[in-house]
Amino acid sequence: MAVRQGALVARCPYVSKVQAVVGGRWKIELLYYIGIKGVRRFGAIKRCVGGISDSTLSKQLRELERDGLISRHDFGEVPPRVEYRLTPRGEGFVPVLEALREWGEREFAEDRPL
Amino acid sequence: MAVRQGALVARCPYVSKVQAVVGGRWKIELLYYIGIKGVRRFGAIKRCVGGISDSTLSKQLRELERDGLISRHDFGEVPPRVEYRLTPRGEGFVPVLEALREWGEREFAEDRPL
Repeated sequence: MAVRQGALVARCPYVSKVQAVVGGRWKIELLYYIGIKGVRRFGAIKRCVGGISDSTLSKQLRELERDGLISRHDFGEVPPRVEYRLTPRGEGFVPVLEALREWGEREFAEDRPL
Repeated sequence: MAVRQGALVARCPYVSKVQAVVGGRWKIELLYYIGIKGVRRFGAIKRCVGGISDSTLSKQLRELERDGLISRHDFGEVPPRVEYRLTPRGEGFVPVLEALREWGEREFAEDRPL
């Protein structure tokens, strides 16, 4: 149902929060590999995503941790061992990740014509 | 099931394509207002999203059109009337948008503690 174009549509606080939390150039992929593929370590995550610098990956992981989607566990070992996992909030995002992947597979499987 | 951390997890072509097509700072919100709230016009979309410049909004809409999620219809009128709508590919993304919004509402409704 098209909105009468003059009518003011209020900004949805949840959609703008979701945009802020999972938006950007990398976070959907990072959540996919950490959450669905069980990739835990910094180096392994970096290899999966490809083309991301160490500093950008660190920043993205810190933001995901700050926003409560992943947790960082330092085992206090030498050499250092640190793992990233989904939090309960992050686990709640897994169905969305699966829906995103399924849509992607449907739409871009053979680069179907529009 | 955690992946043996040395094991190479192949990059999923679909997830990286989805990340490229709907990633960034604005596109989830733009698709939400165009697709779910039926907001069609440039000015109305801009008012919904808030804080986006004309040039950025134009670029984002061009990219969504290039990637086949929205279509731009110019009515050839004076003054000009242009509307944006979801394509079939974009319509296929609506269930994902709804899942994103529901997750956002669950997780950020009262800024629930983590």
